[in-house]
Amino acid sequence: MKVEIDCYPCFFIQAINAARLVTRDEILIRKILVEVSGLIPTITDGTIPPQIGKEVYGIVSRLTGFKDPYKDVKKRCTEQALSLYPGLKKRVAEAKDGLKTAIRLAIAGNVIDFGSNAPFDLERDIQTILTQELAIDHYREFREKLDHAGSILFIADNAGECVFDRLLIEEMKKPVIYAVREKPVINDAVREDAEAAGIGGLAKIISSGADTPGNILSLCSADFLKLYDEADFIISKGQGNYEGLSDEKRPIFFLLKAKCPVIAAHIGVPHGSIILKKAQSV
Amino acid sequence: MKVEIDCYPCFFIQAINAARLVTRDEILIRKILVEVSGLIPTITDGTIPPQIGKEVYGIVSRLTGFKDPYKDVKKRCTEQALSLYPGLKKRVAEAKDGLKTAIRLAIAGNVIDFGSNAPFDLERDIQTILTQELAIDHYREFREKLDHAGSILFIADNAGECVFDRLLIEEMKKPVIYAVREKPVINDAVREDAEAAGIGGLAKIISSGADTPGNILSLCSADFLKLYDEADFIISKGQGNYEGLSDEKRPIFFLLKAKCPVIAAHIGVPHGSIILKKAQSV
Repeated sequence: MKVEIDCYPCFFIQAINAARLVTRDEILIRKILVEVSGLIPTITDGTIPPQIGKEVYGIVSRLTGFKDPYKDVKKRCTEQALSLYPGLKKRVAEAKDGLKTAIRLAIAGNVIDFGSNAPFDLERDIQTILTQELAIDHYREFREKLDHAGSILFIADNAGECVFDRLLIEEMKKPVIYAVREKPVINDAVREDAEAAGIGGLAKIISSGADTPGNILSLCSADFLKLYDEADFIISKGQGNYEGLSDEKRPIFFLLKAKCPVIAAHIGVPHGSIILKKAQSV
Repeated sequence: MKVEIDCYPCFFIQAINAARLVTRDEILIRKILVEVSGLIPTITDGTIPPQIGKEVYGIVSRLTGFKDPYKDVKKRCTEQALSLYPGLKKRVAEAKDGLKTAIRLAIAGNVIDFGSNAPFDLERDIQTILTQELAIDHYREFREKLDHAGSILFIADNAGECVFDRLLIEEMKKPVIYAVREKPVINDAVREDAEAAGIGGLAKIISSGADTPGNILSLCSADFLKLYDEADFIISKGQGNYEGLSDEKRPIFFLLKAKCPVIAAHIGVPHGSIILKKAQSV
């Protein structure tokens, strides 16, 4: 999915939000925005939003001196999600269709997103999403494909959300490779966030090799790409990964909440929809 | 009031909104946004938002070839406001305090604003504003000052809104000079919009000499500045004029709805507040 016109203002909002986490120096933030403005002419017809997102975040990191502005935010989100985990686990166990409930919860966890300028209230949003109708619901295909899958490549999105992914991993009962970002970018999950969520004991955690806030294959490592090419079942979480993989012809299921109007329009659903969508080729 | 950090993304949104009124050519809109990005490094500590607003609008006009993208929008807004005029006039006539009601209606008309990215529903918003509490209410000072004023300099804001200003002009019963923009910019009122609203028979319509979407004195004509310096009662409508005149020590009363969070914060009121505020020196 390419950078749309409505993404342009959003890059500035992302920069402001990230910068304000670590500084109140208005002159410094203005300098950051001047550098972000220099990215605008570099956007071509083939540019994918996470490519610019990475650059925006790089500018914030470099000029503020904070390599990981969302470090504390990510820690807090993981702690909050972990505090909810026992109750959610019970909910999955007691559900008529545990897999379906775990999928919904994995989508609910996707509200923990500081890159999409969509404020959230985790506990309230979970309740909403547990009963909200899926705007696209390829559950039957998901279940069928999962039954025949040897293993799962799970492309993670955000810190905190990993705890919700854990519920789904536990419910799928298949070997899972859990791919996180190589380096911190926005609140995207890196290895330590996945470990903190308790994924370590359940899945093999790997790095995608990329540090874009969304999975862009051309920036991923050879090791990741080998796994990706061989996988017979892939889960892609969240908006950023959708932006990077939406045109792919692989056995991918996208699980996300469409928190941004541009992505919602690209998928063809109302803004705010929850989605379980197979890739075109599935 | 200077350009704040949160104004930066908004300049891009303004450009997108204006461009989409006259073109669907995405490549052209991207070119516009590249030029808008070139404005960002020109923002200094003393820059006032309407200065950049004017440049943004100039880029849209030049690259699309439309000198007045909001021409049709302005015409429709005036027609809608005129259709409401008889009912509103009756409302003022029947009010316990006609002047107070006319002030509220003049503020209500300020929702007709395509520069502030705040969607509006004119008829519904009028009803709300007629009973909404003023977050700042200098009505007593307004009334006192008006009683002693020889004449009024009324600095207009948007097309359509002029019809609401007309109700206030009729109620104040003093000679009024009604200042509009020199040339079209966003949906700001120019002479023909004031004429179409029926101001011509009630007040002397003049141009401020400036074509910024907000009154910036350094860009106004000598004729306007003479009137401004001599005026003993000035009404400034809307956000853009507030941005340009907020630090002035003249007998100004600001009538506006704070549709943007940056302006609301600058005034010190909640976002969405309605305001009748005297200048610091009054």
